[in-house]
Amino acid sequence: MSRQSNRTTDSKKMNSELFTLTYGALVTQLCKDYENDEEVNKQLDKMGYNIGVRLIEDFLARSSIGRCQDFRETADVIAKVAFKMYLGVTPSVTNWSPAGDEFSLILENNPLVDFVELPDNHSTLVYSNLLCGVLRGALEMVQMAVDVRFAQDTLRGDNVTEIRMKFIKRIEENLPAGDE
Amino acid sequence: MSRQSNRTTDSKKMNSELFTLTYGALVTQLCKDYENDEEVNKQLDKMGYNIGVRLIEDFLARSSIGRCQDFRETADVIAKVAFKMYLGVTPSVTNWSPAGDEFSLILENNPLVDFVELPDNHSTLVYSNLLCGVLRGALEMVQMAVDVRFAQDTLRGDNVTEIRMKFIKRIEENLPAGDE
Repeated sequence: MSRQSNRTTDSKKMNSELFTLTYGALVTQLCKDYENDEEVNKQLDKMGYNIGVRLIEDFLARSSIGRCQDFRETADVIAKVAFKMYLGVTPSVTNWSPAGDEFSLILENNPLVDFVELPDNHSTLVYSNLLCGVLRGALEMVQMAVDVRFAQDTLRGDNVTEIRMKFIKRIEENLPAGDE
Repeated sequence: MSRQSNRTTDSKKMNSELFTLTYGALVTQLCKDYENDEEVNKQLDKMGYNIGVRLIEDFLARSSIGRCQDFRETADVIAKVAFKMYLGVTPSVTNWSPAGDEFSLILENNPLVDFVELPDNHSTLVYSNLLCGVLRGALEMVQMAVDVRFAQDTLRGDNVTEIRMKFIKRIEENLPAGDE
């Protein structure tokens, strides 16, 4: 589906439950379509990437946030503005690496998994992996290559959900980026 | 994916854009999976139905709304409470049939289509058909059998989006209902 350039930018605030259940339908469909969890995880990441490269424009327009000075500022903007805006929750930013190139987003409540229990035959499914792709795609559009992965997941019995983000490099402005 | 019984009921308000783009990924995936628009429309309706039968419980818990006296009250609750809660928009209720068993929900802005243009080769796709299924499934759980369909769609060039709802019958309380 292509994007309209003239869409409205007025904000529509909604409860998360319809989104949560629709996301569940998407994951369920992918589990039917692909042979194993590994493939589903990849597809979710890829879909997320394509969403991220679109969502960033909306985010920049809404938030009026300019270029971040460093990765620490980026982390704060992701946690306090972006997650709050699009998921209605504010993760904490912790576990910085000594070099300042890695941190964790800790979610006490992950709205994507509100209605979910993983079946036994999907023990390696990274259910919320779309979020990793969204972050990767969005940051790529502001010239940051990052690695994003789930380090902990309440769906697998962990107490919290932890998304680990690692800065890889700054991307040259002139390289074109698009759908994967 | 099965449902947890002990999930939290605190409200997470979010902007609609991540939902909109994720829904787009779902429709795109179904267009890859199924041969024609007719099949995709059916799948969206079926997924929506399964979402609706779950969402109604959340809705009743959040809204504290009891049994509606008649179909007119049902129409108002759907438009002013349910759509506002889960999509952040309030459609108008119009075009009542003389018998009072049919009405239309008119959406000036359908958040599901914010980023969307239908490609030429999907001219019979009912892009937002999930919503019909959600309404049908949710109402079935409160003992109302309804027929729901899109009568107008801005994606097809209409000025507004119109969802037409027709009351069919009251369902006996004792019949079990579940996933389709």
